Amino acid sequence: MPSNLEQALQFVEEHQRASLELLNRFLAIPSISTDPEHRNDIDRAAQWVKELIGSLGADDAAVYSTGGMPAVCGSITTAGPAAPTVLVYGHYDVQPVDPVGLWDSDPFTGRIDDDLLFARGASDMKGQIIAVTAAVEAAQNCGGLPVNVRFFFEGEEEIGSPALEPFIRSHRDILQADFCLNPDAGMVAPDRPSICYALRGLAYYELCIKGPAMDLHSGMFGGAVHNPAQVLCDLISGMHDSRGRVTLPGFYDRVRELSADEKAELARLEMDEAYYLKQTGAPALRGEEGFTPSEQIGGRPTLEVNGLLAGFTGTGSKTVLPAEAMAKISMRLVPDQNPKEIRAQLESYLESRTPPTVSWSLDEFASGPPVLSPRDSAGNQAFADALEAVWGTKPVFKREGGSVPVATYLSELLGMPSVLTGFGLPDDHAHSPNERLHLPTWYRGMKAVTRFFYNLG
Amino acid sequence: MPSNLEQALQFVEEHQRASLELLNRFLAIPSISTDPEHRNDIDRAAQWVKELIGSLGADDAAVYSTGGMPAVCGSITTAGPAAPTVLVYGHYDVQPVDPVGLWDSDPFTGRIDDDLLFARGASDMKGQIIAVTAAVEAAQNCGGLPVNVRFFFEGEEEIGSPALEPFIRSHRDILQADFCLNPDAGMVAPDRPSICYALRGLAYYELCIKGPAMDLHSGMFGGAVHNPAQVLCDLISGMHDSRGRVTLPGFYDRVRELSADEKAELARLEMDEAYYLKQTGAPALRGEEGFTPSEQIGGRPTLEVNGLLAGFTGTGSKTVLPAEAMAKISMRLVPDQNPKEIRAQLESYLESRTPPTVSWSLDEFASGPPVLSPRDSAGNQAFADALEAVWGTKPVFKREGGSVPVATYLSELLGMPSVLTGFGLPDDHAHSPNERLHLPTWYRGMKAVTRFFYNLG
Repeated sequence: MPSNLEQALQFVEEHQRASLELLNRFLAIPSISTDPEHRNDIDRAAQWVKELIGSLGADDAAVYSTGGMPAVCGSITTAGPAAPTVLVYGHYDVQPVDPVGLWDSDPFTGRIDDDLLFARGASDMKGQIIAVTAAVEAAQNCGGLPVNVRFFFEGEEEIGSPALEPFIRSHRDILQADFCLNPDAGMVAPDRPSICYALRGLAYYELCIKGPAMDLHSGMFGGAVHNPAQVLCDLISGMHDSRGRVTLPGFYDRVRELSADEKAELARLEMDEAYYLKQTGAPALRGEEGFTPSEQIGGRPTLEVNGLLAGFTGTGSKTVLPAEAMAKISMRLVPDQNPKEIRAQLESYLESRTPPTVSWSLDEFASGPPVLSPRDSAGNQAFADALEAVWGTKPVFKREGGSVPVATYLSELLGMPSVLTGFGLPDDHAHSPNERLHLPTWYRGMKAVTRFFYNLG
Repeated sequence: MPSNLEQALQFVEEHQRASLELLNRFLAIPSISTDPEHRNDIDRAAQWVKELIGSLGADDAAVYSTGGMPAVCGSITTAGPAAPTVLVYGHYDVQPVDPVGLWDSDPFTGRIDDDLLFARGASDMKGQIIAVTAAVEAAQNCGGLPVNVRFFFEGEEEIGSPALEPFIRSHRDILQADFCLNPDAGMVAPDRPSICYALRGLAYYELCIKGPAMDLHSGMFGGAVHNPAQVLCDLISGMHDSRGRVTLPGFYDRVRELSADEKAELARLEMDEAYYLKQTGAPALRGEEGFTPSEQIGGRPTLEVNGLLAGFTGTGSKTVLPAEAMAKISMRLVPDQNPKEIRAQLESYLESRTPPTVSWSLDEFASGPPVLSPRDSAGNQAFADALEAVWGTKPVFKREGGSVPVATYLSELLGMPSVLTGFGLPDDHAHSPNERLHLPTWYRGMKAVTRFFYNLG
């Protein structure tokens, strides 16, 4: 007699067509979070998701008001207190569809062409949600889920999740789990499943340099009055040394060095110099000396100028010596850097390097720590084994340069690690016209999630 | 029997009231060049000036069309070919009067309060024009002008003289003179007449640094892609050394050093560090080491950042790694620097210092050489002697940090030096509400111009 797992895998396979139909119904709701005209569709989508998880056995499924778009939560805890609990995260909102004229078919009507399903949200991430719920459904139909599952769906990921942090803070009870399964992180290529185990943190500031009390005529005063735009450039220039390293005092003190093993793993991504040159169109790359691009982006901290503004910036010329100059500067942080310490380092740098001809001030826009979910954690290992079983190849453990706010908040507020993975592909046109989902990969994903539950159970 | 000069000085004194009435009629024409609604007033003012110089004996007085506001020219050449010829320059247009609510009386009705005459244009520079024509009138009534005079009045100085250069180019014949008397340059204080003998030139560029083909996500690419805003700051920072000197190769090669005598003269201005701190509100001054503020502004070249723009500059934060970064950069040049050479120096600097990770381009907005009218030139000496005779004190020979386009064009196109002087004062509120003219200084000015003509004749 086949095991529950074998039956569940069989169930997934036999229900592929039903899962596709379910996804098409989900895709038909234009839940565009950024557009107030679609506010009603957001509510419809939340309701739809609530009914979906309710039908799988989450008897407490409910739509929750937040300061922003509603959240949907619910749980299936029939595996009992001895079994691990997984928080399944997803977002039911989607990007806008403009420019809609570039779509080859209606963005909200799933269209299949060969192995691809075209629709807004197919890959990012309604398809990912259905991959997980299909696995839950299979397990529920083949002896019951071997793990406890809590569902947590938000409706504003595509607008920066403004209400996410307070919601997590105030709903610890219904979110508590051993780890989070977040299938929004995608994979590298159809034959290369991946798990992201590290995300960089972000410390973002606006630096303002003020000199004279008002804009001055550069002819009448230039030469005797120190130009704040010049001072700003001097300060920014001094923030890196000739080897591309950040010079803030103590900036690297807490940086956890990449192990030889991690470097070998990053090299497996094959995102080398040629890859990044092609992706960016830059004439040449440059970063911290001694590291590959993947290491620089995934494993090393940076300091970037995100914006500069001073004086006259319109067409033509104006002979102004500006009274002030502004730069937006952000640092991407890696484990175990701490954004509060980074701010102190930046202040110390400014304190010691700013000449007495100007004054400086800092505004803080973001202060998020890096996230590291150890590769050998129970969640990551269970998922890695599941991926290997389905794909027949070891998944790549990668580190990413950006941040995933929900992973940061879960880590910070609930101490919860995340399994950052998914079955979206880099060329799925997420956020672009003709978004698509690679169906063979998606079907494999359902089986991987099914195996993941049984690996844990 | 009194000399012609003595009679003319007497005439000026006796006609002060008539000169004031004449000025008031001139002031009543609201010739605001920047406001299209006053285009008719510009024409009226041009016609008025034409009639004024015609009444003094300029039989060829005429209004000339230009690409912009009309010019007025005419000549009195009765002194004969052996006598020197003076080009009298002025502008009959005025600044707008906004905010008009801040005026204590109608801007276009002269109002006398004690020693001051209030009206738009009273100081800048209808009053200066009438000071010169009063002297011409006096000489004409007392034996005839001892020098030849050509008049040249423009009507668009307050909007940057867009038609000036082509007009001078195409009217060399009616402008030709030994030197120009330009009374638009003012004086330092009522008891301190001055002549400006050097103006800085201007070379103004927009520098654009381009890196990746499009704005990138600073998390996904930051660390491996060289940030163009960072490169721009590095390049700008490298343009000065730690002593406040410009590092463009060869930048100081042609700089004529200030003589001990010139430094002593600049020190007489008493525009010291305290003066500039008060004027600018800067926390501290900084310029090229080894020079006083007056020397830095009047006698040394500079490089200023007039504008900076890159990436996201709105409220809040955006994690962008910008595709390009822009700076507006201008150099103020002193004799004998040449703007074409300066451009080559800037290009050479950029060529050698820009990393291969970006490309750069330059747009040129201005390329004007510095102007030097030797202190011992015939015009400057004749005017200095006249000022000393009237004020009983040696005038200050000063150098200015800005540029005066008409002086540059006359120097460049006609090889003509200018006597840059005038009877406007720093607190005349030129360009501001309640513009005013200090009448005792103005009456002295008429006598100084009268003496100037006789010193030359």
